[in-house]
Amino acid sequence: MQKDDVYDVIIVGAAAAGLTAAIYTARQGMSTLVIGKDVGGQALLTNDIQNYPGYDNIDGFTLTSKFEKQAKSFNAEIIYDEVQKIHGEDGNFKVETPSKQFRSQIIILAFGKTPRDLGVPGEDRFKGRGLSYCATCDGPLYRGKTVAIVGSAEYAVDAAVMLSDIAEKVYQISNRDRIVGDGDMLTNLESRKNVVFVSNSNVSEIMGDQTVESIKVLNVKSGSEEEYNVDGIFVELGYVAMTDFVKDLVNLNERKDVIVDKECRTSRKGVFAAGDVTDMPFKQLVISAGQGSTAALSAYNYLQRLKGKSIIRGDWKSKKSK
Amino acid sequence: MQKDDVYDVIIVGAAAAGLTAAIYTARQGMSTLVIGKDVGGQALLTNDIQNYPGYDNIDGFTLTSKFEKQAKSFNAEIIYDEVQKIHGEDGNFKVETPSKQFRSQIIILAFGKTPRDLGVPGEDRFKGRGLSYCATCDGPLYRGKTVAIVGSAEYAVDAAVMLSDIAEKVYQISNRDRIVGDGDMLTNLESRKNVVFVSNSNVSEIMGDQTVESIKVLNVKSGSEEEYNVDGIFVELGYVAMTDFVKDLVNLNERKDVIVDKECRTSRKGVFAAGDVTDMPFKQLVISAGQGSTAALSAYNYLQRLKGKSIIRGDWKSKKSK
Repeated sequence: MQKDDVYDVIIVGAAAAGLTAAIYTARQGMSTLVIGKDVGGQALLTNDIQNYPGYDNIDGFTLTSKFEKQAKSFNAEIIYDEVQKIHGEDGNFKVETPSKQFRSQIIILAFGKTPRDLGVPGEDRFKGRGLSYCATCDGPLYRGKTVAIVGSAEYAVDAAVMLSDIAEKVYQISNRDRIVGDGDMLTNLESRKNVVFVSNSNVSEIMGDQTVESIKVLNVKSGSEEEYNVDGIFVELGYVAMTDFVKDLVNLNERKDVIVDKECRTSRKGVFAAGDVTDMPFKQLVISAGQGSTAALSAYNYLQRLKGKSIIRGDWKSKKSK
Repeated sequence: MQKDDVYDVIIVGAAAAGLTAAIYTARQGMSTLVIGKDVGGQALLTNDIQNYPGYDNIDGFTLTSKFEKQAKSFNAEIIYDEVQKIHGEDGNFKVETPSKQFRSQIIILAFGKTPRDLGVPGEDRFKGRGLSYCATCDGPLYRGKTVAIVGSAEYAVDAAVMLSDIAEKVYQISNRDRIVGDGDMLTNLESRKNVVFVSNSNVSEIMGDQTVESIKVLNVKSGSEEEYNVDGIFVELGYVAMTDFVKDLVNLNERKDVIVDKECRTSRKGVFAAGDVTDMPFKQLVISAGQGSTAALSAYNYLQRLKGKSIIRGDWKSKKSK
């Protein structure tokens, strides 16, 4: 039997929160493994971050690549894989990916949120082939074309405003009477001549040959179904924490977010969480980074206590010896 | 009678937390005034920040200058003054500086911590003239000289290690039996031949003509007092939140830190807090920045509720319209 790889801390997720946690745990001399499906997470979807303190304007890929480089410079290991199960307890956790098992004394959950899907026929088949969950990323591909946007709230409004500048025609499909969002944005959207509002309706099927060609739209009030020819469909239903695989490990709130306290401790000893996966209501890169640092220092103090050593304060200073 | 200047939000403190809060409140379209004694706060004391995500290595002045520039680019106003009193209530606060009064609906407390002082004769007189609260900043001035460091914990240990490389002789004065700190650092320090450990002792007076020339040291066990000739004295007793002027406004903990919840709300409606002034146990620039953003978004949602408007989620996107 192969021996599991053992680390002081395993961080699940390699975006702003997870990479910042790794900068801090590795810098404190803790052996650190980061397991992420990709590096950067949702920051990758943004070309124009203006509110990360220290950078006037930077794209998400460049910024999170810097985080990654910093984490590696302090000897954090980063692997690309999917964590399927975490079990164990206080000081002895086992983390499973499809190919391997790892052990650690500490877990930091930082795997963010995932776009909510439609759950209709054709969705899986057309992902990346006309179906997108990110207007910011994929919108520019639909210049002069016809697209549908599914959603009733802010994400959908933003996507519609953006796409109406690019596409020839935009169907805004909402299962409510009316869409909601920022007042100025809504007024702006409603003034656009190439946007068709389709209310009280759900997309029931996505169809096409190699790529999306049409969608079926069901009016939930009348029960009538209609087919719309579209070149692309954007699902903008917001985000959800995919936390089912940790529901026996830590307490979740009613939205399935991991509940943390101010110091990023979860309900389980030795398990910390940071970033969008937590019940912090604000999704901001700098907040995720701050929580990543907080989780790492809480984890360090926890490990020191396990070893019977005195805990340290964090401070501004840069000390290689810590 | 002159009319007070009125803002949506007044931020007290212009370091990492306050400036980040200003970036966010101003960007959300809230009229924002930042009142700080200086820009940068304790980050100014650091020449080598390696753990702010996004920068491998940057000095505190350069980094917080970037924060300041960003806050101003979103039309936050910044003035250099000292807040002496905050009174008022929910939605109508009055902020007093020695020269002026301001009003706001929201207050964000972000004025950090201040080095703890000795409280002995000569201290005020020799500040900046041989007496320093920051070895990192002023240590290099004492090459080849004799210095005393006052303190028993990590800050003092760090200062002693640094100064023993620079100065000819270092007195490490502690009111305890022994100093405490990081194990490696302590071992390192104890091996240094130019460090004299003076335990169970307090500095009782600082003396000199134009600059520090000697200190009186009282052994608290024996009661004997001795005079040491020194060129400089470094007070490294840690930091304290100077929160007396807000003690009637918000709840403080036993260390006089402002108690906040995860969303940076204090016990008083309309008053938020971020950074080192809060009861967050970790002092890190990125944690202060994350809290600044959190306080700002909590404040924004609070103001929206006051106006009876729907609140928004924060998200990664950069939207000028928000």
